[in-house]
Amino acid sequence: MIVDSLICSRLDRDGIEEIRAGGVDSVTVTCGFWEDATESLDSVVRWRELVTQNQDIAAIATTAAEMEEAQRDGRLAIVLGFQNSSFLQGRLGYVEAFADLGVRVAQLTYNIQNDVGGSCYDPTDSGLTRFGEEVVAEMNRHGMVIDLSHVGNRTSLDAVHASSLPVAATHANIFELVEHPRNAPLEVLKPLAERGGMIGLTTYHNLTRGFIATPSDWAEMVARSVDLLGIDCIGIGTDSNQRGTDEYREWMRKGRWSRRPQIGASPPPGVAPSQRPDWFTGPQDFSALGEALAGRGFSATERDQILGGNWMRFYTEVIDTQRESAPEWKV
Amino acid sequence: MIVDSLICSRLDRDGIEEIRAGGVDSVTVTCGFWEDATESLDSVVRWRELVTQNQDIAAIATTAAEMEEAQRDGRLAIVLGFQNSSFLQGRLGYVEAFADLGVRVAQLTYNIQNDVGGSCYDPTDSGLTRFGEEVVAEMNRHGMVIDLSHVGNRTSLDAVHASSLPVAATHANIFELVEHPRNAPLEVLKPLAERGGMIGLTTYHNLTRGFIATPSDWAEMVARSVDLLGIDCIGIGTDSNQRGTDEYREWMRKGRWSRRPQIGASPPPGVAPSQRPDWFTGPQDFSALGEALAGRGFSATERDQILGGNWMRFYTEVIDTQRESAPEWKV
Repeated sequence: MIVDSLICSRLDRDGIEEIRAGGVDSVTVTCGFWEDATESLDSVVRWRELVTQNQDIAAIATTAAEMEEAQRDGRLAIVLGFQNSSFLQGRLGYVEAFADLGVRVAQLTYNIQNDVGGSCYDPTDSGLTRFGEEVVAEMNRHGMVIDLSHVGNRTSLDAVHASSLPVAATHANIFELVEHPRNAPLEVLKPLAERGGMIGLTTYHNLTRGFIATPSDWAEMVARSVDLLGIDCIGIGTDSNQRGTDEYREWMRKGRWSRRPQIGASPPPGVAPSQRPDWFTGPQDFSALGEALAGRGFSATERDQILGGNWMRFYTEVIDTQRESAPEWKV
Repeated sequence: MIVDSLICSRLDRDGIEEIRAGGVDSVTVTCGFWEDATESLDSVVRWRELVTQNQDIAAIATTAAEMEEAQRDGRLAIVLGFQNSSFLQGRLGYVEAFADLGVRVAQLTYNIQNDVGGSCYDPTDSGLTRFGEEVVAEMNRHGMVIDLSHVGNRTSLDAVHASSLPVAATHANIFELVEHPRNAPLEVLKPLAERGGMIGLTTYHNLTRGFIATPSDWAEMVARSVDLLGIDCIGIGTDSNQRGTDEYREWMRKGRWSRRPQIGASPPPGVAPSQRPDWFTGPQDFSALGEALAGRGFSATERDQILGGNWMRFYTEVIDTQRESAPEWKV
């Protein structure tokens, strides 16, 4: 199984075909960044309709078993995820509602603090809030992956410890290798890895500065990541944005909350922009990642782990396990 | 003018009459605690309809001048306010929309952190967020009162300094007199007062422990507050909850975010509950507050200031001034 643990593309049939052309078997898509509950519901419905309309080549997967079933059928498994918890709109009970609709991954925050916790761009990270603690427990109860990408370090560490199941950073690199607020430090990643969590190393050029010009540069970053954290927690989450428009990027950066410049993950004014690699232009080039790893001397077994095997172990543990407990009410 | 700067009652005609019976001329009501944008809009519409149906005894006031006009007509001036910024639902542009509908007061947070800042109950207060800074500027632009009741101390202090207009804590006491997370410390209140801000001292028994059993106890708290901050920033915000039900209090405390016990401002288990005073049972007893101040030796001029004059000066400065600037866009 080849897994891309996060893309932010808005897909159509051509986009699905591009991902399949890269050899990817399962991909987590982004249903929303700042969208509220109704808009998030609209988005989930649109993604489900897209898959229904293209069911010869795609299937919504809500378990690791369904991802493997889709692969056997020659279809791309699509996992529904959110890059924020704004879809909850303050309602604890919406975790179950969106889980029932097929959502399996949710970040606790996007680029700014919310009622769950602090983001990676906030000068002071509050840590996980009281609501955040209940959200984590409820996501555990429904096998929804707790995604710590974009989340502040203190909130991330709180979530690693609060969660009864392994957690993930689906699209980030290691801060000690590439210093960027979006990348996660070992202080977070070591306890995450010790508890069975995952990091989806990204090809996104702004988070991969110094390790992206050539395939061997990127494979070197993966090798150093394995040295730092062990191989079992390492996967790939490209953060690909197929045919991303300026308007879409502006939405990601500002939502409806700002009238000021917001640069997102881009370098600040005065710092040279980082270059998009020509050897990895999108999911259609995913196979180049496997070749890069082979070139760096990773064995076939190791490549299988990094390219998807580790994610499948994680998904099986987090998503597939039937949880029976009723919601916890303490009045 | 007699002003009560905050009540959380759900009013009907009888409730309006109770407030008038206490001699109050202007009252800020609570349109919402956890409500999202649509629910908040529903609430504003309901309040406006209530006033329309009772226009012989009440009027919505959107300026200090309209408060005085209502008083001259023998009608209660009702100021629309929110005890949270959840009505914005992450949208900066909704400040203007709700201001245009008559909303003139909004707390930055209620009892838990949001995308604007930290609450008084959060173990770590993030301070005002980047969105929060833009919200403060936008509220300034529309003369919407920035209310720091329930807000964390660091976020409050940030807001005092970020705001170009005086700000208020509409219903709180001084922490150094009554140690409760809901009460504001001098560290916040001194710079607030120096910049023309206001504090509405409350009669709410949980925030007034030790100063509420008798009218003279309460007047003593007011006198000490005047000693600490000067008289010009002192007003009254009772936080009255006429005919509050257990269900309504549960909504205030938990919204939809928790399945665990949330005690709000009540004492924690094991601490003796504080007693509701028999001499102040609701807005109909507001005149007892003036009598208490007279009994403590406050002059007629001083009583006029505390009972409403200071608030009218503040409202004139914050709400009435026509602001002409277009919204600031920096792309």
